[in-house]
Amino acid sequence: MSKRLETTPKKDGFRMPGEFEEHAGTYMIWPERPDNWRLGGKPAQKTFTEVINTIAKYEPITVVVSREQYSNALAMVDPKVRVVEMSNNDSWMRDCGATFVTDKKGNLRAIDWKFNAWGGLVDGLYFPWDQDDLVASKMAELEECDRYRLDDFILEGGSIHTDGEGTILTTEECLLSAGRNSDKTKEEIEETLKEYLNAEKVLWVKEGIYNDETNGHVDNMVQFVKPGVVVLAWTDDEKDPQYKRSHEAYEYLSNETDAKGRKLEIVKLHTPNPILITEKESEGVDSVEGTLPREVGDRLAASYVNYYVGNGFVAVPIFNDPYDKEAIKTLKELYPDRKVEPIYAREILLGGGNIHCITQQVPKHK
Amino acid sequence: MSKRLETTPKKDGFRMPGEFEEHAGTYMIWPERPDNWRLGGKPAQKTFTEVINTIAKYEPITVVVSREQYSNALAMVDPKVRVVEMSNNDSWMRDCGATFVTDKKGNLRAIDWKFNAWGGLVDGLYFPWDQDDLVASKMAELEECDRYRLDDFILEGGSIHTDGEGTILTTEECLLSAGRNSDKTKEEIEETLKEYLNAEKVLWVKEGIYNDETNGHVDNMVQFVKPGVVVLAWTDDEKDPQYKRSHEAYEYLSNETDAKGRKLEIVKLHTPNPILITEKESEGVDSVEGTLPREVGDRLAASYVNYYVGNGFVAVPIFNDPYDKEAIKTLKELYPDRKVEPIYAREILLGGGNIHCITQQVPKHK
Repeated sequence: MSKRLETTPKKDGFRMPGEFEEHAGTYMIWPERPDNWRLGGKPAQKTFTEVINTIAKYEPITVVVSREQYSNALAMVDPKVRVVEMSNNDSWMRDCGATFVTDKKGNLRAIDWKFNAWGGLVDGLYFPWDQDDLVASKMAELEECDRYRLDDFILEGGSIHTDGEGTILTTEECLLSAGRNSDKTKEEIEETLKEYLNAEKVLWVKEGIYNDETNGHVDNMVQFVKPGVVVLAWTDDEKDPQYKRSHEAYEYLSNETDAKGRKLEIVKLHTPNPILITEKESEGVDSVEGTLPREVGDRLAASYVNYYVGNGFVAVPIFNDPYDKEAIKTLKELYPDRKVEPIYAREILLGGGNIHCITQQVPKHK
Repeated sequence: MSKRLETTPKKDGFRMPGEFEEHAGTYMIWPERPDNWRLGGKPAQKTFTEVINTIAKYEPITVVVSREQYSNALAMVDPKVRVVEMSNNDSWMRDCGATFVTDKKGNLRAIDWKFNAWGGLVDGLYFPWDQDDLVASKMAELEECDRYRLDDFILEGGSIHTDGEGTILTTEECLLSAGRNSDKTKEEIEETLKEYLNAEKVLWVKEGIYNDETNGHVDNMVQFVKPGVVVLAWTDDEKDPQYKRSHEAYEYLSNETDAKGRKLEIVKLHTPNPILITEKESEGVDSVEGTLPREVGDRLAASYVNYYVGNGFVAVPIFNDPYDKEAIKTLKELYPDRKVEPIYAREILLGGGNIHCITQQVPKHK
């Protein structure tokens, strides 16, 4: 049902809409791998279910799940959720899933970036990643839409944001990392982003969140609220290694304009206090050679910017931290027409990401 | 997306339409198990692809396929075909898949019979069958329709036919077999069929095709062309063990009326000459304890009745046998408004069934 296309979205008149534009639905992957999720994934499955059932209140959602966990997932989620068997290597739908583009005639297409588990054999997080790399193609079959496959360009959905009006946000830390497209120049990488997302300008934030194992994905650091307005992960604590990162990003973005020539309004979202892996949490994770270990005392890349925006809602991770309240208040002001849904998300964070990382939107098309 | 229902189709105003009524589409499963399909399933995959691509010319078709064969199936079938990952134990979609029912308001629902591989631990054909038994539920999720699950009633789709007007065809050989519902009386079994398929009358043909490993599925023996008209597998050869079976069925059906009180018109479809497994064919199949062996000289249950009717076509198995011509001619006369598509199907037959056994229709609903 899905043809592989050899053209590009820009040539064909397709663009990636902003996440804040209307959705046809959301995709997620059910978590299970015991060398990343503690206690056989059971606590993470509870939190994922909360995210799934929250989104299901607002828009159609499909959860894909391995053969082994199929019946369990089906039993746990709201009956409104569509559950589909799909093999995977882990549960980061944002990163291995399709990036969808639409045209003005109501057509949907999938971009199927090459995926190598955040750095392949250089600094990837697990091996192998063959099933993750098939997820986008399988989503295109389910959506019955054609697909642009890039055999020679590695990208995760979490490393880009778009305002839907020609501006892309990304980080140098990730897109220029050694484990991805190190055979290409920055200019070549920028050209590919423009061609596939149908954009005119790429804003290169230098770094993402401190100690983020994704090599600083932008979706943990900056997000478009709407064209011309971004939120930025922030800290006032000069001793925090995050300080320099956030301040440099602020400086950079303050002096840039977007594709339409607008100056950006930057809203700060203060990060929670440092969150470290506890002994109990570390002990619950299987030790497997080749998979990033979860060690006691490791600092997690916690950020409120890793929220997900859908039809009428904003699903935001909270951490039982004093800064939760401020984050919720700021997001309520930024999204007056959407319900802010805070979800206690420590279990997702323990796996290496958050709500934005585990979701992928299908834009409304017809 | 699919709720489990505790009522019955009859109570809810749903019925199973005849196969000859309009379809929304077809489902099939990709073959692969090397202890049933010779040479790792490669010859069967070619023939299945012929069936798939033939059906794809006429109506939407979804092919479900294991993780291991996903990419290969995607590469082999026509791009019009929707390919979806789904675990399975073998490729008999008719038997393990959902039986779909519709109501007058345009709603679709799935019946999810309990499946035990044609006889469970009594005389089933392989072990285990856990993934096959999940296929119907997964189809309901894909079709986004609710589902009647029978925890205590074993049935395969190939053991029933309906005229869509209240008459069910089945065989005593199969439905009263020791490996299925032997804790139930014939009357109780009949009552369940009427309640779930929304029928008033069940016609009990005594036996199916000689040496049919399904315990004589009706879909290899008799099929409704339309209400009031059936085709029957036939032989004039008195020495053939099929002779008594066909003649008894003819006798029985001649003296019965359908749910509407009509006498049945019976059209004979002469079976091909006996088809035996060759040494080469037998050698290509893995030997696995617990799976029915494919031995040299075994007679296969070949029958032209095992055809599949869809929107504008009749896909009929042929065997390079002198009787092929007669079967094609008869079906052309019986279906003047459909294209008869003969497919050389020895490779499907070698696995234990034919075109009807590997297909399942989704009736048109909205």
